Amino acid sequence: MAQVEYTSVILRFGELGIKSSQTRRRMTNLLIRHIESALRENNVSYEKVHSVYGRIYIETDKAMEAAQVAAKVFGIVSTSPVVETSAEMDAILNVGEQLARAHFKKGLTFAAGARRIGEHTFSSQDVRGSLGERILEGIPELELKVDLSNPEQSIYAEVRDEKAHLFTQTIKGVGGMPTGSQGKVVCTISTGLDSPIAAYKVMKRGCIPVFLHLDNTPYADEHCSEIAVKQANLLAKYIHGFEVKLYIIPHAPDIEEAQKHAPEKMTCLFCKRNMLRIAREIAIMEDADAIVTGEIIGEQASQTIANLRVIEQAVTDFPILRPLAGEDKVDIEHLAQEIGTYEFAKEGASCCTLNPKYPSVRADPEQVASFEEPMDLGILKEELKNARIMILRKGK
Amino acid sequence: MAQVEYTSVILRFGELGIKSSQTRRRMTNLLIRHIESALRENNVSYEKVHSVYGRIYIETDKAMEAAQVAAKVFGIVSTSPVVETSAEMDAILNVGEQLARAHFKKGLTFAAGARRIGEHTFSSQDVRGSLGERILEGIPELELKVDLSNPEQSIYAEVRDEKAHLFTQTIKGVGGMPTGSQGKVVCTISTGLDSPIAAYKVMKRGCIPVFLHLDNTPYADEHCSEIAVKQANLLAKYIHGFEVKLYIIPHAPDIEEAQKHAPEKMTCLFCKRNMLRIAREIAIMEDADAIVTGEIIGEQASQTIANLRVIEQAVTDFPILRPLAGEDKVDIEHLAQEIGTYEFAKEGASCCTLNPKYPSVRADPEQVASFEEPMDLGILKEELKNARIMILRKGK
Repeated sequence: MAQVEYTSVILRFGELGIKSSQTRRRMTNLLIRHIESALRENNVSYEKVHSVYGRIYIETDKAMEAAQVAAKVFGIVSTSPVVETSAEMDAILNVGEQLARAHFKKGLTFAAGARRIGEHTFSSQDVRGSLGERILEGIPELELKVDLSNPEQSIYAEVRDEKAHLFTQTIKGVGGMPTGSQGKVVCTISTGLDSPIAAYKVMKRGCIPVFLHLDNTPYADEHCSEIAVKQANLLAKYIHGFEVKLYIIPHAPDIEEAQKHAPEKMTCLFCKRNMLRIAREIAIMEDADAIVTGEIIGEQASQTIANLRVIEQAVTDFPILRPLAGEDKVDIEHLAQEIGTYEFAKEGASCCTLNPKYPSVRADPEQVASFEEPMDLGILKEELKNARIMILRKGK
Repeated sequence: MAQVEYTSVILRFGELGIKSSQTRRRMTNLLIRHIESALRENNVSYEKVHSVYGRIYIETDKAMEAAQVAAKVFGIVSTSPVVETSAEMDAILNVGEQLARAHFKKGLTFAAGARRIGEHTFSSQDVRGSLGERILEGIPELELKVDLSNPEQSIYAEVRDEKAHLFTQTIKGVGGMPTGSQGKVVCTISTGLDSPIAAYKVMKRGCIPVFLHLDNTPYADEHCSEIAVKQANLLAKYIHGFEVKLYIIPHAPDIEEAQKHAPEKMTCLFCKRNMLRIAREIAIMEDADAIVTGEIIGEQASQTIANLRVIEQAVTDFPILRPLAGEDKVDIEHLAQEIGTYEFAKEGASCCTLNPKYPSVRADPEQVASFEEPMDLGILKEELKNARIMILRKGK
């Protein structure tokens, strides 16, 4: 019996399935474009990416690589390299036996699953039963046992009209919604662990990021901006078909101005208020709808909810999205390890030398306003003029 | 050899460990009070809850129940029922053998672990080695094998000064920070899946919730408010030592006012703007620092980031926390199943009959303002006067 070869990839998308048919069509088309672009970038050759009945298929003789690349496209819940054959019982059983022979491990339990759409002379139950039998009888040397409730390995057949697709492997996708199903958001990116994960989470929900890094030199090592560039670059790789920019803005002048007029314990508050103001200017220039930060309630003194209130009042016409507000640090660390930003954060452990030893944990809004009154916030416009703008991804 | 009995519980807290010693002390004291209150409420008798070297211990002869109750107190990362003995090698090995005899399963692999603080005649490595040997030799009938890298079951000894604690089980805790380490937040609670999970996440980070439910009758079944009360009641059980209130506010009059002056496709926008305005009034009355919603980017038409911007502009002096902004629905469903709110959400599938068929997905802020201009927002004050206020938990 010849070695079995994958012929294509099945891609599954989750939440998209519950949208209206018009939204679903628009989003499916976005997804197909992003997948094609991801395959091209990764030099994975393919014949066609197309959708049928709530599934997307990639026709390719590099199915395993394509399945892995597509699993990292936002909107994809899972992928499977598959063997396509005709929707006839004989063909299905032959391919099923070949796949089990190639991928099943000796002595373990297995289950066969099947789904069927269209007119056929057999039911999906028939496919399940016959496929299980054929594998048991056709490959006795593997000493397999059937376990339907908790199998150690599985084989599935999806029969649709004239075609059947069989697979034994499912690769978990990144999930979320297709990039571009939402508009732009300004994502603040520091050298730490949290901000890139916050950006990742809103990107996953379909937003197009405009990255903003505030350069604290001389109160930070020059190395720090490089770490932020690495973080933004890694995240930008998840975006297909849209331009991604990174703004690096010198931040020291406005912090120095704050230090002239306010007590040291409030430095972080004014730093963050100014960060939001700069983010707002960029949001206006870039036509973005929101500002994203990596703040976690209670993680640092400046991140008490009382302080978040004082910080947020600096910008009143854009929502500040804090997707990590309710997360525990340990969960963020796991996600950073998955995504690959964990290493960068370790490098940039301390990129601000101005952290006060006893920071204010419950600043008063009125007091903050009165300290801020004599500050020259025109400095922020100057800082914006000195922006370094990097294009991390080209658009279509 | 006598049956081994647990004598106490070890509780571990994660992020607290990295705080300053002053903060850590304050938070540890909060935690101890909450644990005592949780034990009393669940009728689990105990002798003492106290802290030693970054651990909290419960002295109790109901160790297994106490370990389970304490695992649900915010700030606790894990708990283990333990056997306390003296810090002598003989005593440790005797207890270790008894514990393994009582809890280890036949034929599986195991590992022994040990930590040690204080002055002893042996190292932690000695404890690990001797404990493993003693279990292998003392209980040959269990046919155990040692596997240090990936054991199927484990035993640990923690030796501190004159005492040693041994355990074989670790119960995962809810994590987060102790309730009251942050101030109050107003948590909007609907009948759906998302808002209670958003509330849970900020509560987990130490915030004290003030729940707010908007009663949509006659555009919702009367049953709907009951579901919201159930959701809030379940969440309130996680709070110890602080009063928890639920405000139920009639919402129909302001929606009707919006419908008079704005096109149907914008109904959800005005509904949510008014929700935030009502939440703001309650935040002021209750001295809360933020408003929490269950919004997820792109989950519904009213939840595009463009619309979130329009909604948020209704309140400019309080932060709107959306801890689920970057989550996928499937992850929220899992958490709702864990916490127990999933069942309620199923009951309250449709608690608003005014959802427009073609809602606005990208409302213009200026247009929204001009539609809103003739609306009588004094209605909101009237609605607040008709609030039903329930005390779900009494304070200290």
